[in-house]
Amino acid sequence: MNLSPDPTAVPGHAPLSPVRLAVDCMGGDHGPSVTLPACRAFLERHPEAELVLVGRDDALAAARGWARCTVVTATEVVEMDDPLEIALRRKRDSSMRVALQQLKADAEGRTAADACVCAGNTGALMAVARYVLKTLEGIDRPAIAAVLPNKLGTYTTMLDLGANVDCTAEHLLQFAVMGSALVSAVDGKENPTVGLLNIGEEEIKGNEAIKKAGELLRAVAAAGHMNFCGNVEGNDIFKGTIDIVVCDGFVGNVALKTAEGLASMFVTLIKQEFTRNAFARLAAFVALPVLNHFKNRVDHRRYSGGALLGLRGLVFKAHGSSDAFAFEQALNRAYDAARNRLLDRVHDRILETLQALPANSAEAATIGVADGANPTMARVA
Amino acid sequence: MNLSPDPTAVPGHAPLSPVRLAVDCMGGDHGPSVTLPACRAFLERHPEAELVLVGRDDALAAARGWARCTVVTATEVVEMDDPLEIALRRKRDSSMRVALQQLKADAEGRTAADACVCAGNTGALMAVARYVLKTLEGIDRPAIAAVLPNKLGTYTTMLDLGANVDCTAEHLLQFAVMGSALVSAVDGKENPTVGLLNIGEEEIKGNEAIKKAGELLRAVAAAGHMNFCGNVEGNDIFKGTIDIVVCDGFVGNVALKTAEGLASMFVTLIKQEFTRNAFARLAAFVALPVLNHFKNRVDHRRYSGGALLGLRGLVFKAHGSSDAFAFEQALNRAYDAARNRLLDRVHDRILETLQALPANSAEAATIGVADGANPTMARVA
Repeated sequence: MNLSPDPTAVPGHAPLSPVRLAVDCMGGDHGPSVTLPACRAFLERHPEAELVLVGRDDALAAARGWARCTVVTATEVVEMDDPLEIALRRKRDSSMRVALQQLKADAEGRTAADACVCAGNTGALMAVARYVLKTLEGIDRPAIAAVLPNKLGTYTTMLDLGANVDCTAEHLLQFAVMGSALVSAVDGKENPTVGLLNIGEEEIKGNEAIKKAGELLRAVAAAGHMNFCGNVEGNDIFKGTIDIVVCDGFVGNVALKTAEGLASMFVTLIKQEFTRNAFARLAAFVALPVLNHFKNRVDHRRYSGGALLGLRGLVFKAHGSSDAFAFEQALNRAYDAARNRLLDRVHDRILETLQALPANSAEAATIGVADGANPTMARVA
Repeated sequence: MNLSPDPTAVPGHAPLSPVRLAVDCMGGDHGPSVTLPACRAFLERHPEAELVLVGRDDALAAARGWARCTVVTATEVVEMDDPLEIALRRKRDSSMRVALQQLKADAEGRTAADACVCAGNTGALMAVARYVLKTLEGIDRPAIAAVLPNKLGTYTTMLDLGANVDCTAEHLLQFAVMGSALVSAVDGKENPTVGLLNIGEEEIKGNEAIKKAGELLRAVAAAGHMNFCGNVEGNDIFKGTIDIVVCDGFVGNVALKTAEGLASMFVTLIKQEFTRNAFARLAAFVALPVLNHFKNRVDHRRYSGGALLGLRGLVFKAHGSSDAFAFEQALNRAYDAARNRLLDRVHDRILETLQALPANSAEAATIGVADGANPTMARVA
């Protein structure tokens, strides 16, 4: 993740200037008490960025008058436990929906913002985003991508993390394409490595969808359009040997939550061990700087900011429990994605992939990108 | 896991006496250099147990003359990287196969051992065990169960961990039955809690197989034959709030390896942090007893001993990289399972489950246990 205040864009993709993010300030467990300080810090670090702050009028009073900020009022809030139907059909003036509408192109193809950031309920956000923005041409199913830390001190991008419980080989291929586009846009790696999550490295492993996805990915890689490294296993996520791990949403969600659960258990047990007796407490006192440094390295807040990929607009999701630091990381990721024209990249890569597949596979992959169609919308100046 | 040398059997299930385990001494990364010391330690701790040691004649020379031990010679060894066909069709006199044959009933239904323990290749072991032993009546697919540590300092049993990449709702129900039988036999919990691994707690979550499995499990629970607690998520594995987590082998394998990968990353990062500079090394010195105590609590060797459930014989799998301590834990688990008549329990529970299901569900579940059939075979005295 590039956090530098004056970053250099990835070559070949001219940055938008200035980048403008729409922020649902009401989402998440803490709402404006977290989102507003995060926005303020973000603006300070990115003197060229602009924000569209969306929320209830009273809640955003503090932000009126901030430089490089527009406040857009929404009268309703999608709560974290609201059912999908409520978010989708009832709360038509929710901050989530209004923030997403900032990405919607007008008749001239212009949008009010380049990307949207929200810490609200993931299911509701995906449903409302699909409804408001529609799916990108060539993509059947949007997916959720997020990053996990690894042994090398970098991170691994993984998708899908829960948007799609049943996936075909073609969906998995599309996830691989979108993941590659994300990593190249946000991390500046032009040719990131892709692994297919499986229960063994051999090509014969896995169920039918996985085996067929392996075939499609090998065909695309053979044509030089993807850096596909074959099957990977659960433990490879944390080795740092692969940039992107592709899986269906059921498996990805279970793997992510398993990792969260184990991490939480480790923290609990380490705390127990270092408070067991007087000696342990003394050891904790001595080891505190080391333990804190360790904690910072695996701090999940640094990895906040999942991307909803495959929509006609860039949508980033911060964790519901985000504090200001975590929410700011999500803003950073959205900013980097917009600045490096992630939508363009997804479009370009889908086209490349389609051309790389043998005719019958390409047809099966149902990737029907119209030639010359450009998914990036010009923004309202 | 009951490790006491003179354990009390679970009430209602008279223990076998003496319990006899068949051991594939050649399996695993280290073969007899690990298995023989483990067997020796096991015999010392279990003065009433007997072992059948299987392996190459020269490799087992050291064990000839050990009390309560029989040596059975096998001329071949299934290597860790042997393809299934080699293990299954070529190496017909492998130590793995001969050890499994000790569980095969003769014409009078007697067997030479009550359970088998092997540290060899899991895929080969499952394939050879299915071929030699066949599947238990009422079970369509054998499954692999293992235990993971949790926050409460106990452990959680999880299955399937990789034997079945595609599972129907009925398979998942059978896994739940077998897992309940395992936990009641090995841990003495008569009514262990069962959770269905999913991507949310709500009944509407998951794919079709998962949703239908939830229905079947609720029907069995409503009739009082299973302690089903509904859907659980990946993080629940490590909370200690559920005894058994049921999932298909693809998801289970990914979750297990994800957990292994994260644990390995934590260990690497903690080591890096405590050797970063002179101060960190001093802190490590002071904190060493606390860190070692922590390490012991999460030591994966304590959780060695996966069970291959659903076969006409008790088969336990130690990790391929097991040292003598880990291999002994697998022997302990096999011993507890045999002593508490795990096969009987699986049979009883399958019958109960069949009776508890509504007629059409029972038919759909294709559980065809013949009335009065008892899967436990008398052992050759």
